[in-house]
Amino acid sequence: MSEAANDVAVQMRAGLRRLAKAVVVITSQHESQRYAMAATAVSEVSMDPPSLLICVNSNASIHTPLSAGAGFCINILHSSQEAISAVCSGQERGEMRFQQGAWAQSKSGLPYLEDAQASFMCRNDRAIVYGTHTIFIGVVEDAVTSGAVDPLVYVDGRYTVVGPAE
Amino acid sequence: MSEAANDVAVQMRAGLRRLAKAVVVITSQHESQRYAMAATAVSEVSMDPPSLLICVNSNASIHTPLSAGAGFCINILHSSQEAISAVCSGQERGEMRFQQGAWAQSKSGLPYLEDAQASFMCRNDRAIVYGTHTIFIGVVEDAVTSGAVDPLVYVDGRYTVVGPAE
Repeated sequence: MSEAANDVAVQMRAGLRRLAKAVVVITSQHESQRYAMAATAVSEVSMDPPSLLICVNSNASIHTPLSAGAGFCINILHSSQEAISAVCSGQERGEMRFQQGAWAQSKSGLPYLEDAQASFMCRNDRAIVYGTHTIFIGVVEDAVTSGAVDPLVYVDGRYTVVGPAE
Repeated sequence: MSEAANDVAVQMRAGLRRLAKAVVVITSQHESQRYAMAATAVSEVSMDPPSLLICVNSNASIHTPLSAGAGFCINILHSSQEAISAVCSGQERGEMRFQQGAWAQSKSGLPYLEDAQASFMCRNDRAIVYGTHTIFIGVVEDAVTSGAVDPLVYVDGRYTVVGPAE
């Protein structure tokens, strides 16, 4: 990168620390292998069709099944599930990432976290390659919620919670 | 929609209430008209190129300039800027949305909120039409931050703040 591009990257990173986001774990299953990865690059897309998107680095293990068209699940973590985020963002690899947490299997065969804030089971509908990442759009086929509303949030390089309802 | 599809939409909406998100105002300028819209459907994409995406309903006024390729700015609101979110999500229309807040103009001619948590000035690089919405990918050409880290967050149908640093 040129020096100017590098400056923009530094400024952008500083700005992105302020984009508070719920922490999710994206899961998939492909050729009898399970995958899980903590992430924050998630967005709702449309209600018609009901759809969400995720941005995944092409270096990530889970990029391989997703590129092959495997479905995926987006699990929004509870504030008490910080340890699961840590396990799924580098502490462990592969199947070891499923040793902690109440993992179950959806009707469509996707691993999901039973006591997550919410889990969205998605059919992998479209992949858009952009730079180092691929944007995968998922059509939500099923969605479940669990427990009170109390999401784990990542902001300014730290985990936190949201303020109480007034 | 069929009844089953409707059930999924209901479940998905319930789940999405738990996806805590920073509140942003997306701005644009096209043919000497300024546009502003509050949103939460925003995600980082890649650092190479430095890029963000936004999902915009094709019914929204700002969809017209964005579809024409106009650049856009993503402004992350401070916790004190809830009123600006309200103005930019329906209370006011068009130019009236700029009557509240410290609006300035970037070098590239984009309106931005000077005292936002962060503002990302983007070149409009790609548009992907999906259902009712279009995903616009912006290459970040400039990014600025202002004030302490204290984003306005939307979760469970209400505005809130994040917990304090420990």
